Amino acid sequence: MTSAPFDYAPLWPAGLPAAAAKWTGLARYSFVGGNNDAEQVPVADLTAAAVSVLTREGHMLATYGLASGPQGYLPLRDFLAGKLKRDAGMTCTADDILIVSGSLQALDLVNHALLARGDTVIIERDCYQGSINRLTRMGVNIVGIPLDGDGMRMDSLAAALTELKAKGIQPKYIYTIPTVQNPTATIMPDSRRRELLALADEYGVPVFEDDCYADLVWSGERPPAIHALDGSGRVIHIGSFSKSIAPALRVGFIVAPWPILSRMLALKTDAGSGALEQMVLAEYCVPHFATHVPQATRGLRAKLDTLMDALNEQFGTAAEFEEPKGGIFLWVKLPDNVDAMRLSQAAQKAGVSINPGPEWSVDQRHAHSRIRICFASPTHQDIRDGIALLADICRTEFGVPERIANVAQAKG
Amino acid sequence: MTSAPFDYAPLWPAGLPAAAAKWTGLARYSFVGGNNDAEQVPVADLTAAAVSVLTREGHMLATYGLASGPQGYLPLRDFLAGKLKRDAGMTCTADDILIVSGSLQALDLVNHALLARGDTVIIERDCYQGSINRLTRMGVNIVGIPLDGDGMRMDSLAAALTELKAKGIQPKYIYTIPTVQNPTATIMPDSRRRELLALADEYGVPVFEDDCYADLVWSGERPPAIHALDGSGRVIHIGSFSKSIAPALRVGFIVAPWPILSRMLALKTDAGSGALEQMVLAEYCVPHFATHVPQATRGLRAKLDTLMDALNEQFGTAAEFEEPKGGIFLWVKLPDNVDAMRLSQAAQKAGVSINPGPEWSVDQRHAHSRIRICFASPTHQDIRDGIALLADICRTEFGVPERIANVAQAKG
Repeated sequence: MTSAPFDYAPLWPAGLPAAAAKWTGLARYSFVGGNNDAEQVPVADLTAAAVSVLTREGHMLATYGLASGPQGYLPLRDFLAGKLKRDAGMTCTADDILIVSGSLQALDLVNHALLARGDTVIIERDCYQGSINRLTRMGVNIVGIPLDGDGMRMDSLAAALTELKAKGIQPKYIYTIPTVQNPTATIMPDSRRRELLALADEYGVPVFEDDCYADLVWSGERPPAIHALDGSGRVIHIGSFSKSIAPALRVGFIVAPWPILSRMLALKTDAGSGALEQMVLAEYCVPHFATHVPQATRGLRAKLDTLMDALNEQFGTAAEFEEPKGGIFLWVKLPDNVDAMRLSQAAQKAGVSINPGPEWSVDQRHAHSRIRICFASPTHQDIRDGIALLADICRTEFGVPERIANVAQAKG
Repeated sequence: MTSAPFDYAPLWPAGLPAAAAKWTGLARYSFVGGNNDAEQVPVADLTAAAVSVLTREGHMLATYGLASGPQGYLPLRDFLAGKLKRDAGMTCTADDILIVSGSLQALDLVNHALLARGDTVIIERDCYQGSINRLTRMGVNIVGIPLDGDGMRMDSLAAALTELKAKGIQPKYIYTIPTVQNPTATIMPDSRRRELLALADEYGVPVFEDDCYADLVWSGERPPAIHALDGSGRVIHIGSFSKSIAPALRVGFIVAPWPILSRMLALKTDAGSGALEQMVLAEYCVPHFATHVPQATRGLRAKLDTLMDALNEQFGTAAEFEEPKGGIFLWVKLPDNVDAMRLSQAAQKAGVSINPGPEWSVDQRHAHSRIRICFASPTHQDIRDGIALLADICRTEFGVPERIANVAQAKG
């Protein structure tokens, strides 16, 4: 028998994604990804919840789905139904909810239930990279709608819907992150949500509402979910515990009417999401969620202040941004001569990771000089040091920010 | 705005699976599924492990992948590398292992990395329903190889490979469950594993080794994994903790060389499997796995005895089976006039769920009168009562087993 390495390459099917790179660890200053503040993980209460629920129901781990069926652990779905009513005005029951392995599995299930190669969808122009990548990989045509300070622009949406209709194209959905949009951090007001729904109704398009950051609003108050404003079942709503509790727990959820929820359930071929995570989360959230979130949010808000101070100090007027009302990221416009892709590469080499705008937008020109900076995970000191280093790199590569401006700014 | 229910049906892409049925709970006597014995879940030790690992590393939940990278929690991969060496003779390191959400996600990742519609694969004639369904859904041609008491028959495999080659068809893989085959419970001996590898080498085909039941051998000893006998990297090996610890924990693994592991990693779009489950499992398994498994296996063995006694008592010679050397299921041949699909439906109505053979085979005629009976989950008393009820239903529907034979058998 030969021991020459077996060559898999001739077996690859068409369209197989490129190989993943070997993981080399997080950058020294990591401003990417949805990682949380390690100090904000409620370790003691999660541990107590684990002891409590395992002692009481641990034997149920012998049964797939914990005898709650394939939609997920019933106490967690019951908690969610109450939370979504209280916080987002949504009317749903445990039967309308499918627990999934993070909102990323939710994205995949919604996409596979509705999309085929060549289909068209409408999304926000600047958008979560993972959503854009999934659509690109599926061969779906993306129409990007510009945003303003209130999120997706309704005039642009109306124009896009009209244009598509004129071409005989029926978009499969309007995807929006209305509450702390990724990456712009805008929050769509109630009135615009109603406009969006009216347009969706007029053109017969479902709305795909991704609310995964919605718990992280500084004021603690958010507009009703688009799902809450709809009476027709056209809104598919997804959410996650990644941002509110801990991202390494892979627990998200889909709220949708049974005709499409049942299709997504058929596509979910993993015999349910992790039971232990669902059990511990449910046990923890019932008593603690409502008090934990404001505390975690205060910590995020403080880190945002540190980040904005550091940017003002190090970049001066060269860094333009709107102050977010919530979330974990800041969308920053640098001077036009800054190539964000090149900046990102140079920064990575120097131990600073940032998200270059072109990877978070469907409009490469618009995003050319923009970057996304995530601030939840690094310490306050690392935020200050990392942004100073980023400014140095930007200056070396592009001549901005000018040193004199920063010194003046720092002293000012 | 209309409140008429939104109709998703016009949006379905081609090939979308049928809607899942609403879950209606487990049957009164459930002899299906990989559910474990609730009494065998090591609740106290799992709870202690949760406390220990959360107290020490709970703050790591703030970071996707727990700073172990996308292949999964490093201590769990390290445990697996040692366990696979000790039990299965495999040589691999943590770098060769990808932790996944149960072996079902492993099946999906392997299939999506290698298969396209119209491809051909070789599997065992009687085979795990989930594997058959996945391949059917993907539009893949299945060649089923008959089994004997030592698993997949090598003369039939050689003939199939020759025939495919003559037709110019290159099979994408040979899929086998060599250690406690599902549903036949056969264990392929060392010598046959080497024959299989030699054939795979001769015809240039990868081997897809599914070892998810391999821990459950009564003797505690199993032949080396096919992966262990190969020096070329042609074997993709998958396994799971579902059968050895608890099925509701969705933790499985893939061992494969980097050229294909990196492709599967790129296809794994869920930002890692559940961290809490991985942490608790690693913390539990290092000290307890080696002692827990033999204890759990003794419990399974006792339930198998109860099942075989009940079948002998209730069905007499009408139920034919080989005594398994391990696992959680018995593959039973009933008289030829028994239509296993019809029996299964009648039994379901009466509160007894069994797997009809035709759903666990690619040869409908061969499997026509066969059923799979899972024995890990029901109590000893439920095994006795459920099999008695099944015999009654079989008698009513098909006239076998004859009552007189049973009475004689029961008294004998």
